[in-house]
Amino acid sequence: MGPPPAVADVRRAVRHALGDLAPGSLVLVACSGGADSLALAAATGFAAPRAGLRAGLVTVDHGLQEGSAARAADVVRLAHALGLDPAEAPAVHVGTAGGPEAAAREARYGALAEAAGRLGAAAVLLGHTRDDQAETVLLRLARGSGTRSLAGMPARAGLYRRPFLELGRRTTAAACAALGLVPWEDPHNVDDRYARVRVRRRLLPALEEELGPGVTEALARTASLCRDDADALDGWADEVYARAAVADCALSDIGGVALAVPELEKAPAAVRRRVLRRAAVEAGSPPGTLAAGHVLRIDSLVTGWRGQRRVEVPGGIGVVRRYGTLVFARQPASPAS
Amino acid sequence: MGPPPAVADVRRAVRHALGDLAPGSLVLVACSGGADSLALAAATGFAAPRAGLRAGLVTVDHGLQEGSAARAADVVRLAHALGLDPAEAPAVHVGTAGGPEAAAREARYGALAEAAGRLGAAAVLLGHTRDDQAETVLLRLARGSGTRSLAGMPARAGLYRRPFLELGRRTTAAACAALGLVPWEDPHNVDDRYARVRVRRRLLPALEEELGPGVTEALARTASLCRDDADALDGWADEVYARAAVADCALSDIGGVALAVPELEKAPAAVRRRVLRRAAVEAGSPPGTLAAGHVLRIDSLVTGWRGQRRVEVPGGIGVVRRYGTLVFARQPASPAS
Repeated sequence: MGPPPAVADVRRAVRHALGDLAPGSLVLVACSGGADSLALAAATGFAAPRAGLRAGLVTVDHGLQEGSAARAADVVRLAHALGLDPAEAPAVHVGTAGGPEAAAREARYGALAEAAGRLGAAAVLLGHTRDDQAETVLLRLARGSGTRSLAGMPARAGLYRRPFLELGRRTTAAACAALGLVPWEDPHNVDDRYARVRVRRRLLPALEEELGPGVTEALARTASLCRDDADALDGWADEVYARAAVADCALSDIGGVALAVPELEKAPAAVRRRVLRRAAVEAGSPPGTLAAGHVLRIDSLVTGWRGQRRVEVPGGIGVVRRYGTLVFARQPASPAS
Repeated sequence: MGPPPAVADVRRAVRHALGDLAPGSLVLVACSGGADSLALAAATGFAAPRAGLRAGLVTVDHGLQEGSAARAADVVRLAHALGLDPAEAPAVHVGTAGGPEAAAREARYGALAEAAGRLGAAAVLLGHTRDDQAETVLLRLARGSGTRSLAGMPARAGLYRRPFLELGRRTTAAACAALGLVPWEDPHNVDDRYARVRVRRRLLPALEEELGPGVTEALARTASLCRDDADALDGWADEVYARAAVADCALSDIGGVALAVPELEKAPAAVRRRVLRRAAVEAGSPPGTLAAGHVLRIDSLVTGWRGQRRVEVPGGIGVVRRYGTLVFARQPASPAS
C-alpha cells in the first residue's frame, strides 16, 4: 500500500533535496515544532538514513513566549523519537534591530549557523513551503524592488536548503496528521501586527477570491521565473563589471572603484544599473539603503552626461565622471570636521 | 501664476512624450471621455500646437451601451473645443473571442490603427495611468507568467504612446476638475464582473490597507524594472538564437527550426528557455497556448538528456533531439487521417 500520499510527498521532497550529499554527511533540520518543520523532521528522520546520511535537529528557543523552553524540550524529545540525533535547543536573545520579525530571524539564523558549524553539518533544512514563498513574493512586491526581490526564497543558499518550496502547506499539515504528530500552533501566526500574518490571513484569500484559485501557485511560479532571470542578469553584470573595472592603486587604497564609461554604454539598462549598484556597494554604500533612485542618478552620469557634478549616495560615497571614467569613492571629510 | 499643478503635470507629461516627433506630424488622442483620456485630450490640445505638431482625436463607439453613439458625438464636439482636429467617432462591432474585455480591446485597437493609418498619424496617445499599470501588474501576477508579463504596459510600442504611465489617476481627475471638464463615468468601471474592476475597487485598497500606502507606486516601479530586465534578456536570447540556428533547407521549407544543442548549453536557464520558446513559436506553436511547462519539457531535451522521445507542444509541433540538434517541426499527419 505504501504511505499516505502526503507522507510520500514530503519524503520524496526531502530525498530529492539531499540527493547530492556525500554518504555519512550530517543534515540538520531547523524545527519550530509547527506543521511545516515537523513534517520536515519526520520526513528527514525517514529519508536521511536510507540515503546513507546522518540527521539531526535544532529548535531555537527565542525566549519570547511563556513556556518557550518547555516547548523546545518537547521538540527535542520528539526528535529522538523520529530518529534525529543530535537534537539541540539553543536559547537565543532576540534584539530589536529592524523590527521584531527581522530581529528574531537574525537570532535564529545565528544559532543555526553556530550549531551547523560546531556539529560539522553539510546542510541545514528549512521547512518553508510554497505558501510561504507566495507570501514572501507579495510582501516584496509591495516594496517595488525588482526581479531579484521577487525571486523570493532560494531552494538552496549556502548551507541552507528548502525541500518544501514546491509543496503546499496543506501537504505538510496532512503529513503530520497522517503520522499522528501534533504541530505546535505559534500564537504569532495569528497575530495581525505582523505583515506576513496579514498577507496570509487576509490578502492571499482576497486575491484567490477576486482573481480565482491558483494565485499561490502563480506567485511561487513568478518567484522561480524571476530567480532564473535575476541569476542570468547578475552573471552578465559580473562580466561587464570585470571588463569595465579600471585598475587604479591610489583609488583602491582608499576602497574606491573606477569603471570605464564606454563599457557601461554598451550594456543594456538592466545590466548597466546592476554594475553601477555593485560598484557603489563595493565602494562602501550600504546595500540596504542604496535605493533604485540613487542608481538611476548615477546612471544619468553615463546616459545623460552633460557635465554634472558629483552624485552622492548613502554611506558618504560620491560618484564623479572624469575623462570617460566613473569614480566611486568615499567623500573626503569636510575641512571643518 | 501658471496653470493649476495637475494641469501643469498632464501638459508636461504630454510634451515629454511628443518631444521626438518631426514638426507638422499628426498625433491622435484615443479618448473614451473618461477622466484619464479627457485630461489627455485637453493636454494634447494645449501642448501639440506649441510643439509644432497637429493633434486629432478618435473616440471609438463600441455600441455596447445605450446611448454610446450620442456620447461619442459629445466627445467629438468637445475635441473641437479643445483644438483637436480631425476628431472622429468610428463605430465598431465587438465580438466575443477571449471574453468581453479582450474582444472590446481588439475592436478598439483595430479602429485606432485604421484611423491612424488613414490619417497618417505619427503617434496615437493612450490615457493609461500609473493606477492602470498597477492593476495590470496585479492581474498578470495572478497568472504567474514571468518578467515580461510583469513589465505591464510599455510607455511606447509601435505607434502607441502612454504619456501618463507615471501619473496617478488622482492627477488626471484633478486636471479635468481644474479645467471644468466633466468626465464620462463608464458604468463598466464599477461592474464587478470584470477582473480589472475587482482589482481596482477591492484588491488594491486591501493591499494598501494591509501593507501600507505606496503599493500602487511599488507595482508600477516593479513593472518598469521588469521591463528593463525582460528587454535585456530578450536581446541576449536574440543573440543566442542567431548563433544556435542551424540552416536546413528541407526543414525551413516546411516551416521548421533547428537549434545546435552546444550553443543552448552555454546559455543560462532564463536565456535558453526564451530561445526554446521562440523556436517553438517560429515553428508554429501559438504563443498564447504555449505554456512555461511546455518550454520546461523541451528544455529537458537539453539539460536532462537521456534519449527521450519527441516532446509535443501546442499547434501540433513536435521537438526531437538528433545528433546534437533540436528540431522543431509540425508533426506529419498520422497515416490514418
